[in-house]
Formats: sequence, structure tokens, C-alpha cells
Amino acid sequence: MLNKNTLTFLECDKDFADARTVLFGAPFDSTTSFRPGTRFGPHAVRSESFGLESYSPYLDSDLIDAAVLDTGDVDVSYGDTSATLDAIEERAEEILAAGKRPFLIGGEHLVTLGAVRAAVKHYPDLHIVHFDAHADLRDDYLGAKLSHACVIRRCHELVGDGRIFQFGIRSGDREEFRWGKDHVATRKFDFEGLAETLKALEGKPVYFTVDLDVMDPSVFPGTGTPEPGGVTFDEARRAATLVCQTANVVACDACELSPHYDSTGASTAAAGKLIREMLLALEV
Amino acid sequence: MLNKNTLTFLECDKDFADARTVLFGAPFDSTTSFRPGTRFGPHAVRSESFGLESYSPYLDSDLIDAAVLDTGDVDVSYGDTSATLDAIEERAEEILAAGKRPFLIGGEHLVTLGAVRAAVKHYPDLHIVHFDAHADLRDDYLGAKLSHACVIRRCHELVGDGRIFQFGIRSGDREEFRWGKDHVATRKFDFEGLAETLKALEGKPVYFTVDLDVMDPSVFPGTGTPEPGGVTFDEARRAATLVCQTANVVACDACELSPHYDSTGASTAAAGKLIREMLLALEV
Amino acid sequence: MLNKNTLTFLECDKDFADARTVLFGAPFDSTTSFRPGTRFGPHAVRSESFGLESYSPYLDSDLIDAAVLDTGDVDVSYGDTSATLDAIEERAEEILAAGKRPFLIGGEHLVTLGAVRAAVKHYPDLHIVHFDAHADLRDDYLGAKLSHACVIRRCHELVGDGRIFQFGIRSGDREEFRWGKDHVATRKFDFEGLAETLKALEGKPVYFTVDLDVMDPSVFPGTGTPEPGGVTFDEARRAATLVCQTANVVACDACELSPHYDSTGASTAAAGKLIREMLLALEV
Amino acid sequence: MLNKNTLTFLECDKDFADARTVLFGAPFDSTTSFRPGTRFGPHAVRSESFGLESYSPYLDSDLIDAAVLDTGDVDVSYGDTSATLDAIEERAEEILAAGKRPFLIGGEHLVTLGAVRAAVKHYPDLHIVHFDAHADLRDDYLGAKLSHACVIRRCHELVGDGRIFQFGIRSGDREEFRWGKDHVATRKFDFEGLAETLKALEGKPVYFTVDLDVMDPSVFPGTGTPEPGGVTFDEARRAATLVCQTANVVACDACELSPHYDSTGASTAAAGKLIREMLLALEV
Amino acid sequence: MLNKNTLTFLECDKDFADARTVLFGAPFDSTTSFRPGTRFGPHAVRSESFGLESYSPYLDSDLIDAAVLDTGDVDVSYGDTSATLDAIEERAEEILAAGKRPFLIGGEHLVTLGAVRAAVKHYPDLHIVHFDAHADLRDDYLGAKLSHACVIRRCHELVGDGRIFQFGIRSGDREEFRWGKDHVATRKFDFEGLAETLKALEGKPVYFTVDLDVMDPSVFPGTGTPEPGGVTFDEARRAATLVCQTANVVACDACELSPHYDSTGASTAAAGKLIREMLLALEV
Amino acid sequence: MLNKNTLTFLECDKDFADARTVLFGAPFDSTTSFRPGTRFGPHAVRSESFGLESYSPYLDSDLIDAAVLDTGDVDVSYGDTSATLDAIEERAEEILAAGKRPFLIGGEHLVTLGAVRAAVKHYPDLHIVHFDAHADLRDDYLGAKLSHACVIRRCHELVGDGRIFQFGIRSGDREEFRWGKDHVATRKFDFEGLAETLKALEGKPVYFTVDLDVMDPSVFPGTGTPEPGGVTFDEARRAATLVCQTANVVACDACELSPHYDSTGASTAAAGKLIREMLLALEV
Repeated sequence: MLNKNTLTFLECDKDFADARTVLFGAPFDSTTSFRPGTRFGPHAVRSESFGLESYSPYLDSDLIDAAVLDTGDVDVSYGDTSATLDAIEERAEEILAAGKRPFLIGGEHLVTLGAVRAAVKHYPDLHIVHFDAHADLRDDYLGAKLSHACVIRRCHELVGDGRIFQFGIRSGDREEFRWGKDHVATRKFDFEGLAETLKALEGKPVYFTVDLDVMDPSVFPGTGTPEPGGVTFDEARRAATLVCQTANVVACDACELSPHYDSTGASTAAAGKLIREMLLALEV
Repeated sequence: MLNKNTLTFLECDKDFADARTVLFGAPFDSTTSFRPGTRFGPHAVRSESFGLESYSPYLDSDLIDAAVLDTGDVDVSYGDTSATLDAIEERAEEILAAGKRPFLIGGEHLVTLGAVRAAVKHYPDLHIVHFDAHADLRDDYLGAKLSHACVIRRCHELVGDGRIFQFGIRSGDREEFRWGKDHVATRKFDFEGLAETLKALEGKPVYFTVDLDVMDPSVFPGTGTPEPGGVTFDEARRAATLVCQTANVVACDACELSPHYDSTGASTAAAGKLIREMLLALEV
Repeated sequence: MLNKNTLTFLECDKDFADARTVLFGAPFDSTTSFRPGTRFGPHAVRSESFGLESYSPYLDSDLIDAAVLDTGDVDVSYGDTSATLDAIEERAEEILAAGKRPFLIGGEHLVTLGAVRAAVKHYPDLHIVHFDAHADLRDDYLGAKLSHACVIRRCHELVGDGRIFQFGIRSGDREEFRWGKDHVATRKFDFEGLAETLKALEGKPVYFTVDLDVMDPSVFPGTGTPEPGGVTFDEARRAATLVCQTANVVACDACELSPHYDSTGASTAAAGKLIREMLLALEV
Repeated sequence: MLNKNTLTFLECDKDFADARTVLFGAPFDSTTSFRPGTRFGPHAVRSESFGLESYSPYLDSDLIDAAVLDTGDVDVSYGDTSATLDAIEERAEEILAAGKRPFLIGGEHLVTLGAVRAAVKHYPDLHIVHFDAHADLRDDYLGAKLSHACVIRRCHELVGDGRIFQFGIRSGDREEFRWGKDHVATRKFDFEGLAETLKALEGKPVYFTVDLDVMDPSVFPGTGTPEPGGVTFDEARRAATLVCQTANVVACDACELSPHYDSTGASTAAAGKLIREMLLALEV
Repeated sequence: MLNKNTLTFLECDKDFADARTVLFGAPFDSTTSFRPGTRFGPHAVRSESFGLESYSPYLDSDLIDAAVLDTGDVDVSYGDTSATLDAIEERAEEILAAGKRPFLIGGEHLVTLGAVRAAVKHYPDLHIVHFDAHADLRDDYLGAKLSHACVIRRCHELVGDGRIFQFGIRSGDREEFRWGKDHVATRKFDFEGLAETLKALEGKPVYFTVDLDVMDPSVFPGTGTPEPGGVTFDEARRAATLVCQTANVVACDACELSPHYDSTGASTAAAGKLIREMLLALEV
Repeated sequence: MLNKNTLTFLECDKDFADARTVLFGAPFDSTTSFRPGTRFGPHAVRSESFGLESYSPYLDSDLIDAAVLDTGDVDVSYGDTSATLDAIEERAEEILAAGKRPFLIGGEHLVTLGAVRAAVKHYPDLHIVHFDAHADLRDDYLGAKLSHACVIRRCHELVGDGRIFQFGIRSGDREEFRWGKDHVATRKFDFEGLAETLKALEGKPVYFTVDLDVMDPSVFPGTGTPEPGGVTFDEARRAATLVCQTANVVACDACELSPHYDSTGASTAAAGKLIREMLLALEV
């Protein structure tokens, strides 16, 4: 007897009961300021994962052995940002309530806010490790408080001063950098100090959010706002692996893949491979 | 002495005081359900108009002689649909208040709502002539009332039964077509009956809204939701010219060009040429 | 409890037991002579069907009501044409054995051979209606008997003279047209005579194979070998609907979508919309 | 013993001594006003001809039997328009001097001037049949006399009044159309009157120049200046075949393919197929 | 009252009287030897600058505070190289005559010649610092003296031996490198020795010309002749900043962005960001 | 008298009798598992070589002086892998039999097998140096023994243990790496140890196979399976030059360029430039 067609990221097809990490997508990009298209990210990452191996020669481990399930996308409402964030929060809560780790695939970076809302309820002492090209610390963007350019500022309202650690930041307006000095820890351009930060976070619950545009446009042009001057794939991979292996990551995400802008497929491959390494570092 | 660089559609650079038709853009696409990108429409139409002649061999007239000014784009807020519609309404009102005709370039089709709001205030007896592939008559789309898939339904709330005349419609859900039968006049697939409709509208104030995807994807693939089976460029041109020459068009728009989806530039050329013909038919 | 992500064409998610028509894909293109890429066809048709309505204003019916299931792709072996054809034949047989109608989505046109093999076993009196730009009647192509350029010749070996009816053919070498005169009925360039052919086939079991490149490259450039001079989308839609409504179609397919060659998405939209109309004409 | 790699259009590899028609390319686009890229035309037409059959089902004849040689491109100087035109003229003269028919593949339309110069020397009574979207009758373009927008005006200076017959023209500035009325015969938009024109030209030496953008951008978007509203491929094919079969074509060209602008390859296929039909109509 | 639409690079909209640096574009590419398209560079840099911040976290300064005006493009004549160079020279002279610094955006590299002609009149002791992948030292290119491949050779004729300092050169013919040894200082592949060179140039008037293809195609593929093996964005940024902060730059340019060849937009972003850094280093 | 058009890589047009290295292409990709298209590789490398200089500033030598001939492509059969490998083997044998060095341009990596078969007949003591992102050591791929994912495993069956030296490998399944440990020497990720390996191979006949995807997708995205984390162009260039200058390379190849996936042309430029450097290192 034949069944309905399924599509999951790599080998992430374990039963929910057995899974420790649970993937879901949020194909939302309505607040994107420059070039939209991250809504196509979650589907592209799944579809193109056929071109990746499930085995990592970096970590010598295989997603076949990892307790991961890909549950597909939440329903987003392109005309209603609040409703979309609620849907993300609800899915993350369902996963957290079952004692599992949500792994969200964006969509624009604003989707992180939905997942952080769920995480901070379960872990009031939540800390955030943030990889990004952009500070995302605006109070509003052209009048909108719920914008991808404001997402870390909104997260700050949930976790407070001294809880957010940014790395790789190479773009923002003057005011963001000024405000950031008093409220978050920002490492510009690269990952220097990451190991020390992780050491200081030992035992603390960590939300790990990766805006994939922390990578240079040479390796990751498929994003809304390409920012030359970023890190290489290997630098991003090593840093993300370090976080996943060292910190107590209770929830995480990878955002801002806009696959149509890179017709070579290299950006989607980079996103998928980084997610594979993160999953293996978390799970195996 | 050197001045700041300017950019207008073709020769639409007359003084505001002299202009009878006033162009403005609304680069908004936040509620787009399938593929975003119409935000790039107004800028592309201006930029690529360099490849068009200002003279029309169809109408034997020239935009050099037309009293038209291109005033650029309104400020849109990608995180706030209501604020964006307000901005559009405000610009349209300013133009109407000066006794001129607003010509809006989208952006997704929802932007029409802002301009219709302004027009219906000035012309309570407003009628709407609507060219489109899609009925746009949903009451909501995935929960959102302010969606490009609902725009004509929202306009109907402003003008009421018997005031809206649709042509070229070839897509919608079952419920839209059912609802439409009782409230609007819908001609499926082509422009049959257009002349009769225009005759019946003689003397009435008309808002003319053109969703450019009424054209077949063979000539206009650069749009959010390509729908095979549409009209040719010449069919659209003739029909639009007829409306502009015959009806009392008090305001109008051309929407849903998403230029990045058609790297050949043919879609942008088709949009620009249709707008040129509409302007000449209105003005000369 | 959360489940594994699924992906089907439009609303084709009925239970196998209830389904009358069963979709499956064959993402194979190893014998393609000019430009490969039809392997991406089945996945693209499913993924992009989100941009289509399930309701047809042409037929006033809806895929929500149709007894159709999409069972995903067979496993293909890019290094082994015979093994791939066996896999296709096996899936088609499983569907036919359950008393249902297989609907195959290619892949290159050679995949038809696997499905025809299965169909001719169940229906020894099988006739074939064939829409295509290319005759596909070569005895071999650069030495290969199992090539997409030879597929109808191979089918002829299974069904014999007078059983194959071609429409829309506008390309082939001289020898194909010569051979065809004695063995198959070929209508060049368009669908003239289709109604008469269908009348003559009344009651006979028909395999209906649609090489989508029968459509003109203006509406369907996303294919391996674009051939200017083809039919419009509406001509193809009307002809295919006629076959599905009139003939006793026991199995069918739609092939040769190569989605990457048309970055506008219009080709994939045309393929999906034609398949929707075929399914509705067959089922509702 | 192995030889140097060769590349010719389809089967156009006969010996020069035997050839009656001789192909050559002029990959020049330096005066292109809007979007350059026609320099890639000749190479694309040769390279992509692998996807075409040499046999025409329209004419039931085959390029294998045609006495045609493709001699490759002339050397062009991107910084020197005059030198480039000289090189074209020289090649055309060499072919004409050998009693053969030159068939030039552009490049931008200005290249025609080089070939017409050669042709008018051999045939002082030369007439010109011109298919195009654009009138190309400007006296200068932004100060340049040698521009692709002026090419037919320059040709007029060589052949004089009443010798040039334009078809399909749908773009130009006001002045071009005015000037044209007194000096050339211009049929706007389509090919009406072509048969009559050809009858009147009976026995006269004809230069036949085809700006491929006479075709609509739906089938031929790969060109410098897409102009919606053109003829279909079949209309162009029938008209070009009629000229080649009826008139005394002593030299001809096909210009303005800019293949990179149409990544689907459909434009190049349309150009190649039209050239095939022209060659067969001339030769077989 | 509504005004004509304007478009400038980032915040470069100061009054001419107040500006110290004045931007202008030269959208010319007629002598480009391989792939044309740099004519689209100036417009793309302006249009896409919306995706950049005006604030630099590298320099902690903001273009809002910089005395810069963008005056748009000069009129170029695609059929007349000399006339185009004259137009560039004229604009540069007008700016220099007002005691301001011209900043030219190409266009192909040949446009530099027009600006250098103006600069050398005002500063007879002019020196040139040149970043490029290509030596551009040919005496002629396929017979043309005014070619982008000869531009530095032409500049040498204006300034003489020992005045030109090249960095990053990784391509040229044998003769260029030989000639260069006797007449210019060429650093192959990277920026080694730049600081020493700048020290030696202290107090001298410097024309700074940046062929953006000095950057590797991984970060800057959007150019006419991609040359693998170049510098990273950060290397280019640091070197260009050093020149602008250290030398007495009396005029400068950034050339050879051909934006259509990189549909990801990363090349345009790299060009725009480098220009921003150069402007800030010059002005703040 | 005019001749047939020719097309060779750069200046590789010497007579066969004089040539020491002989280029040929194998435009085959039928077994490609993820994204096909390498069949376009050999033609693209030739066509785009016009954008490269024949002179290398790295090696200070010029292909004009090199004894190299480009003999075009072998006939491949897209439906018959064995026949295709035979054709490759035959061409390689003809070159080897004449005492020359074959240089094969792929096509997918499987084509290497044909050339290695020929080489091992002439040089029973053949060793293989292998640059690649992928191990290519599978025993079969989805049932197929003749797959590009198995090519080095098939080569191992010809040369045996201890004869194959892999560098740069960053992808494979777990089993490949396990099997490889016992049978081949694999250096993961980079070229460390290459000099030592070459020293150990002194005097031995070496087949040098370069899967171009050893380079990072940032510089070489135009390939079937992009694998982030690879080497830079300069690292690849230096390593390949070292092999060609140091080892006794009796035959070699460069594979897996799939040019259509990188519309910027940078991948083709990287492939062509690497081949130029290899040829110069071998020949001059």
C-alpha cells in the first residue's frame, strides 16, 4: 500500500517520542526591509539536503544516528505578524513541553522572537548567543516594532541586560551600536572571545540564534541583505559547533536564507551543511 | 552648478502645478501569499523606461507633450500594513485635492485599497473597472483581512454592490466565484463586454485598477503568481486604452510587477509600455 | 504529537484505498540528449503547486473533491536506465493491480516506457494518444535504444501499428517522419483531428502521454529542448481536457518539465495547472 | 591523426568552393543604446544549434543537403566602429566576389551596414526588405551617426528613396515615422502587404535584413530592447520563408540576438530555427 | 506640493555649494573586450545603496555627516568614445574648478582617462595609485587605442614615468608586464608595499583609481572579466581606506561593476560598501 | 578562400604531430546524482577562454609557446555509460600511442575512468593523485557501479592498494572513509603533505585527476554538488602547479565544471585559469 509523499531534512525522520531535537520551519518574511524571499528558506533547505551527506567528516558522526525529527512548517499569515509569531511560539512550546529542543529554520530573523518567547517561559534564566552580520538592535524600523531589524532589541526586553552575546556584527546604524554598548555584549566582525563567553555561560540555558548572513556573501549571497566582509564557512562552522558542543543549548535557530537570490545553490548548501553540523554537535 | 540626480518614468517630469496626472509608487509586498518582490516594481518601471520611446505609434502621441509628473514612492512600512495603506491614501488625497488624477504604481495589489479610499471620498459614486487574473474577492486570506488576495472584497465594502466590473479573471477559489456572482460583475478569461460596460458607465467616476498579471505569463512572467492562460500584450493594451479613452477615469493604478522574477526584462518592458499607453490615452 | 513533514501536489492527499487516480514521479533524465534537468520536474510541480488554486474556473470543480493521492517518487538509478524503467513499471503495476489509474510525472519522456509496459500488460488492447513537439520515433539515438528520443518507437514495439496517435509534432529527423507514415498517425503542429480520433477510440483503453514541450517555449521554456512554434497553454489545456473527458484513459503522464531552465516559474506553473485540469477532467 | 576542434551552425560545413550561401558572424554591440550583449549572438547560435534538427518538417528539406558553409566571425574592434564595419564589408565582398550569397549573423543591427555596403557595390539596383520592431531611421543617436538606431537611415543613403520596405515596425520616435513617410515604405506591427511587395520586387536584387526583435518578447526576450506587441514565431517564420523563396535574395542577415538576457535558451532556439528555415528556403 | 523623484547614493544629497566631494557616473562600456554591462554600474550602486547603512562600524562615522553630493550621470555616446571621454572630462573639470573632489563611478575602466585628463590640468604633478586585476598597459587592443585594456597606458602618456603605482595586478599579456617594468611600479597580486608607496607620495596630488575587479570573483563576480585569485573584500577595504586617509586624493574613481552578471547582488553591495568606506575615509 | 569555423582552448591549436599535450573533452553527465550539467563543461571552457590571457604572471610563460592541441570532444552516448567510457578510452589511447600526454576535460568525474583505463595499459605502474571535495570511493551508488560517486573505487580496481593519493576530501559517507583507510591515502580538507607525496612518487608515472569542486563554492559554485568548506583558487592553483611541475604526469584531467549553475561565469573562469596553469606547468 502506497503512502503520501514525505519530505524531511536529511535523515531527520525519527518518531516524535524518540526525538530529542525537533526541527520546524517558519517561512515568513513580511517585515524584511530590503529584499524579501526568506520564506523559501525552510523548503529549500529540506529539498536541497538530498545533495548533502548525512555523515560529517568533521565530527565523524552521522545524522542517521541522531534523534531528530523534522515536523515541517508552522502556518504563517503574511498579513499578520503577531499571528505568525504566536504560531511559532505555540510550536516551540509544544516541543519544549515534551522535554525536547526546538530547532527553528527561518524565514527572516524576526521569527526568532516567537521561539525566544517560548524558551524564556521554560527557562526564565535564558541567555542568548547571537551570530549575525547585523546588530538587529533598532527600537523600531520605519515605525514598526516587530521588524527583523529589531528582533534582538525585542528579545532584550524579554531577557534583560547582560544576557545577550553577539558575534560577527558588521552592520547597523550609529544608534544601535551606542545602545548596544550599555545592554548587550557585541563582538564586531568575528568570533574572538567566543570560548570565554561560553565558559562564562556554563550551566546556563542558552538560546542560540544564527543569522546565516554572518557568513560572507562570497559563500552565502542568498540572503536579504548581503554584507561583504563576513566570516568564511569554516569559521562559522567551527564557532557554531563550539556553541553546540559546549553550551546548554535549550533551543536554537538558523535564519535568513533567501535561496532564490543565489541560483547556484551554494547558499542553500552552506545553510544545510551548517545545520547538519549543529544537529550533530547537539545530538551525537 | 550641479544638482541632485533625478529619476522619473519617461518624460513625466512636468511641474506639479501643470500636471494633470501624477504618478507615485507604493513599493509594498508584505501580504503577498506566494512569491514576494513587487516592492521592486515602481523602481524597475522608472529605471527601465530608458529602453522605451516616449512616442507611441499606436496612438501617434508623445509623453513629452503629456502633463504628467512622477513624484516617487510613498514611505512604506514592511511591518505595518495599515500604516502603509494610510501613506498611500494620503498621497492620493493630496493629488486629488489639487484637482489632479493619481496614477499609482504597485507593489502588490493591496495598495489599490489605499488609493480607492481616497478616491471614494472625493467621488462617492465611484465605480471600479478591474483587470486581473485573480478574483481577489476572498473575505480573508489565512486569517488576514488586509491581503492582496482580498483587495477587491475590501473595495466592495467601500463602493457596494453593482459598482465593480472585473475582466480577465482566471483564478480564484470556489467561494470567491460564488460570492462574486451576487455582488460584482465578473467576466472570466478575457475582455468580452468591455465596450458595453464602459458605455453603461458613461459619465460615472471610474477607478481603473490593472493587475498586470491579467497578461499571460508568456509576456508577463515577472509577477508573484504566474497564471497561464491570460491575454496577450496587445489585448491588454487595446482594452486598457479603451478604458482610458472612454471612461471618466479619476484615478488608476498598475500593480503586481515583480521584476526580479523575469531576468529578461520583458515583464518590466510590458508594464512600462502599458503604463505609457494608459498615460497617453488619458492625457493626450 | 507532531508528525513528519509531507508534501503532495495540491490536495492530492486522499487515502490509497479511496483514491482512483494515483500520482507518482520519476525524476530521471540520464538519456536526455540536449539539456538535462527534468529530474527536478516532479519535485518542482509539487512545491510550486502552493501557488495554484485547487479550484478550476474552466471546469467549475475542485481537487479537494477528487479521489487522488500523490505517492512521491520512485527510486531512480542515474547510472542504470533499465533498473529505472523497472522501478517505474513496478510502481505503475502496483497501482493498476489495485484497480486505480497511475498518473506519472516525469522526468524525461523515456519514463513513459516503464508505465506503458505496465499498462499494456493490464490492457493488451492499449492505444496511445501522444502530445509532443518531437516525434520520438528514432530507432536509436547515438547508439542508445533506451533514449528519450526513441520512446514512442519503443512503445510501438509493445502496441504495434495503428495504435499510436500523435499531435502537435513539429520536430524530428527526416527518417522519423518517413517511418512514422507507415506505423503511427501523426498530426503535425496542432490538434486538428483530435475529436475524430477520440471518437474512433471510444471504449478502447487509452494511455495518454503528454510531453509538455508540445506547448510553445513562450509559455513553457523550462524544458530540455525548446522548440519554437508550439501551441498555446489554452490550446494544450483544451485538447488535454478533451482527451481526459472523452477517452477511457487507463494511465497517463506529463513529462519533460525542466524547471531550472525557467527561473520565472511560469513553466512549472503551466505544468501544474495542466496536470490539475487533467486530474479534474479525469476524476470529477 | 587528430585535428583542431571545429564549430559550425548545424550542418553548414560544406567546402567553400561548393557553397552557395556562406555564413559569417559579426559579434559587435558597441553602439547598442540600451542593453549590450548581442556580441554573444553568433557564438550562441552555433553552440545551441546542437539542440535543433537539421531537417525541417515545415519545408520537408534538410540542411545536410544544403550548400552552406559557416566561416566563423570577422574580427571586430570594440573601440572602433568604422574598422568593424570595414571588416564586415570585406568579408561580405569576398563572398560576393566568389559568386556566393553572404548570410551575416549579428551582433547589433548596425552590422548590416557593412554587408549592405558590399552588396550595393555588386548590385547597384539593390532593394532592402527589413523586418524589425524598431524603425532604425534616426539621423543620429545621441550624436552618433553610426548607431544601431540609425542603421536603416544609413542604408537609405546608399540605396535612396523607394528602395526600402519595412515590416513589423512598432517603435521609434516621432521624427523617424515622419521622415520615413517620405522615403521608405513602412508597414507597422505586422507583415500585411508582404506578398504584394515581393511581387513588385520580382527580379530585383534584394538584401533581406531581419532584426529578430520583430518577434514578440514572449518568444524572443533575449535581445537588447524588448518591445512587447510583436509577431509570433510562426508569423515571422512564414514571412521570412516567403521572402527567401520568392525574392532574389543576394545577401541577408539576422541580428540582435542577445542570448544572455534569456537564460531559458528559447530566444537562441528561435533565432537558430529561423535561420535554418531561411537557409532551407534559400538553398533547397 | 509634490516634487520630481530623486535618487542618490546613500545620503549623498548635500548642496553643491557645501559639498567637498562630488559623485558622478559614467555609464559607458563600448570598448569592453569580453563581457559588456558596466554601463549599468552607476545606477545599480545608487539603487542598491538602500540596502546599506550610511554608518560604518569600521570607521565609526556616518555619510549623513559627510559633505558629498551625487550629481548623476554624464551623457555618454555609445557610438563615440571620444565624445564620451570629453563629457567625463568636462564634468570633472566643473567639479575641480569649484575646488571640490570629483568621485567618478564607472562604467568600464576607460572612463578614468576622462577624469585624469581633467585632474592633470589642475595638478600637473599628478600621481596615480591604481588597484586592479589587470595591468591595462596595452598600447592598443585589437587596433583601438581608446580601450579599457589600454587606459593606464594612456594615463601614462599624461603623467609620465614613475608616477603610476599599481597594486593587485594578476593578469595581462607578456608585453604589458615587460613594458611596465620600465615605466610604472607594479605590485602583483596584493597590496604589499602600499604603506611605503603612500609615504613616498606624501604631499603629492594623487588620483586614486579602483578597478573593483581587484577583488576576487568570489566576492565580486559582477564584472566584465572575472579573474580568480584576487584579494578579499576586507583586504580591498583596508587598502582603499589607507589610501583615502593617507594620500592627498584630489580625484578618484571606482569602476568595472557590471551588476547584471551577479544576480545575487553581492557584487553591487561590495562596490557600494567600498565606495561608502572611501567617501568616509576621504571626508570625515 | 574561407574555412570552417574552429574553436579551441586559448592558443591550443598546434599541429598534432608537434603537440606534446593533447586536450579533449568528454561532455558526459548521465550518472550525476544531484544536479546534472557537466556536459556543458568542455564547451564552456573553450568558449570562455577568450576572456583569459594566454600568458601567466604566476609562471611567466605563455600558452602561445606551449605544444598543445585541443582536439574537441569525443562522441558520448547519454543512454550508454559503457559506450561512453570506451570512446574516452579510445581517444586517450590514440594520444598515448602517439607518445603524447592526454588532458581530458569533463564532464562528470566518471569520465576519468576511461582515461585511466588507457593510461594503466601504457603505464602498468600507474599512480593516481586525486584532488576532490568528495571521496568517490563508494562501491556502488543506488545500485550503479559506473557512477561518478564510485569513480576512484573503480580506478582502485585497476591500480590496487597504495597507489591512490587523495587531497582536499571533505565529503563522503561513513563507509567510504572506513574503506579508504585500508586502501588509499586520504588527506582531508586541504593539501597538507602533498610535497612529501610527490617526493615519494618521484619517477613513477602519475595520472593527475582534478575534480574542480575541491575549490570552495565561493569561487567555484558551478558544479553538480557544491560543498562549502573547500580550498581557495590560489591554494588549488599552487597545489596543481606543484604536481604538474614535480611529478611525471603521463595523463591528467579536470572535471565537474557545470557552467550553467554559475551565471556569473566565475566558475568557468576558475576552471579555465587552472587548466592554463596546469598546461603551462606541464609544458613550458
